[in-house]
Amino acid sequence: MKYGVIGTGALGGYYGGRLAEAGKDVHFLFRSDYQHIQEYGLKVNSTKGNFVIHPINAYKKVTEMPKCDVILVCLKTTNNHLLQNLLPPIIHEETIVILIQNGLGVEEDLQSAFPKLHIAGGLAFICARKNENGFVEHLDEGELKIGAYSPHISKLKLLEIAADFEEAKVDTEIVDLNKARWQKLLWNIPFNGLSVVLNTSTDQLLKNKHTKHLLYDIMQEVILAANHCGIDLLPKYADRILAETEKMIPYSPSMKLDFENKRPLEILYIYTKPIAAGTLAGIEMPRVSMLEKELRYIEAQYVK
Amino acid sequence: MKYGVIGTGALGGYYGGRLAEAGKDVHFLFRSDYQHIQEYGLKVNSTKGNFVIHPINAYKKVTEMPKCDVILVCLKTTNNHLLQNLLPPIIHEETIVILIQNGLGVEEDLQSAFPKLHIAGGLAFICARKNENGFVEHLDEGELKIGAYSPHISKLKLLEIAADFEEAKVDTEIVDLNKARWQKLLWNIPFNGLSVVLNTSTDQLLKNKHTKHLLYDIMQEVILAANHCGIDLLPKYADRILAETEKMIPYSPSMKLDFENKRPLEILYIYTKPIAAGTLAGIEMPRVSMLEKELRYIEAQYVK
Repeated sequence: MKYGVIGTGALGGYYGGRLAEAGKDVHFLFRSDYQHIQEYGLKVNSTKGNFVIHPINAYKKVTEMPKCDVILVCLKTTNNHLLQNLLPPIIHEETIVILIQNGLGVEEDLQSAFPKLHIAGGLAFICARKNENGFVEHLDEGELKIGAYSPHISKLKLLEIAADFEEAKVDTEIVDLNKARWQKLLWNIPFNGLSVVLNTSTDQLLKNKHTKHLLYDIMQEVILAANHCGIDLLPKYADRILAETEKMIPYSPSMKLDFENKRPLEILYIYTKPIAAGTLAGIEMPRVSMLEKELRYIEAQYVK
Repeated sequence: MKYGVIGTGALGGYYGGRLAEAGKDVHFLFRSDYQHIQEYGLKVNSTKGNFVIHPINAYKKVTEMPKCDVILVCLKTTNNHLLQNLLPPIIHEETIVILIQNGLGVEEDLQSAFPKLHIAGGLAFICARKNENGFVEHLDEGELKIGAYSPHISKLKLLEIAADFEEAKVDTEIVDLNKARWQKLLWNIPFNGLSVVLNTSTDQLLKNKHTKHLLYDIMQEVILAANHCGIDLLPKYADRILAETEKMIPYSPSMKLDFENKRPLEILYIYTKPIAAGTLAGIEMPRVSMLEKELRYIEAQYVK
């Protein structure tokens, strides 16, 4: 199988790099660091062993890439409008596109644009970052959860892809996509937003009894909305997430990093779409809605 | 009548100064600026005419002050614990204490500490500030609303006090205290809190459609809680406040100024007490509660 990676940031670099390191045929789209990668390769330092992919199938334009059987989309969702032009040159009739992204509704929007496309969703449980010149650091965890979205997608092919990842030292699980997306929102909604609004990190939010309480209240709103959207998540799940996050190293959520680097925030898919899904199911999420509006205000101060 | 002013900041300096300028017998408690005031007097620049009170009845300690018939308490509510010691030396059996402060429940707490005290509440609708050395600037508005709190208070005396203020060029109105306090909360709760959390001013909050919507949503929560606490406020009142605030000059609410000067925030009486009153009446205020927790977190970063 020929793999394509669109958006070779921390996630694309790590997961694509792992596949390439395992001998799979992987083709990477780069932007600013293309020249450096061509010369020195893609360097990955990882808790599961360091490696460099060199030589590497690196491209600056999708029109120079081959058609791929599997495409890992690892863009920030704020760039998803680019897919309209990025995908057509590299897909064929059976291509599977896996959106390894945060939030709710990314697959739905892509399917509207490409009704025949075979779409899956991916959820990365990983602590990784990319520094200048394509140097990827994998700091903690790393599991990948994959779930089918398009009704016409081949479940067998998804299993093959998962097997490739397993071979490449990536713990992989096939999951119910909608449930997995809501489960991840349960962490992303409170921790991403509050770390930006209060300009802080996960450990500080958990140390203060008021914000810890607020994290919990926000999670309960998300659980209630998920329940009304047909997802069976129990209220207790919030306690588990709080306890697990308390054990993590102090961590700046991805939205906090976007904020610090003055990049657009992933508000649409992490907040607006879940709020809309809740509303459609008859559930209001007042705290989540408030967080969304606070984030919209903050983003408007630097994104014009 | 002998007037005492406890907390001669912008409010105490302006309202007390106005009474003194009109020839009333007013005694002021000062802190750091006592020496300067003794020497140069209390200087007030006002849209209704500038004046200086010199010589002035200024004191550094309440034990040096005479017993007063009316005491204007113009402290920040974060200092209300000081009243336990400040009041006894200057009150007699008929003294009326007027708490010219923000929030809900200040009178109740003082009455618990002094069951026989004659307590009233005051609400200042004024844009004023005090600079170094007791120089007070009155920039806009200035109305004072006064309402009885203690059942045993003399309504006739309140009218006399109001007449003194009118004589001193202060527009004064006798009001239903509980209703007036909730009405003022309707402005204070959204604008104070969001200007601190989002580090901004009233005009910016109103210019952004997301935060304008949020201001409105928060006001609706306050109106609903007020309704359940027996206050007849209509939802439309929120539109009026938004429209009126849009006409005001860009303004930093008092809590924003406290935040900028690293002073404790008046969270207890502006947020915690109204939330508790709502809860008691069976109404949850999720957005207001979230704002309270965000403020508690922010305050904890600099108030240890």
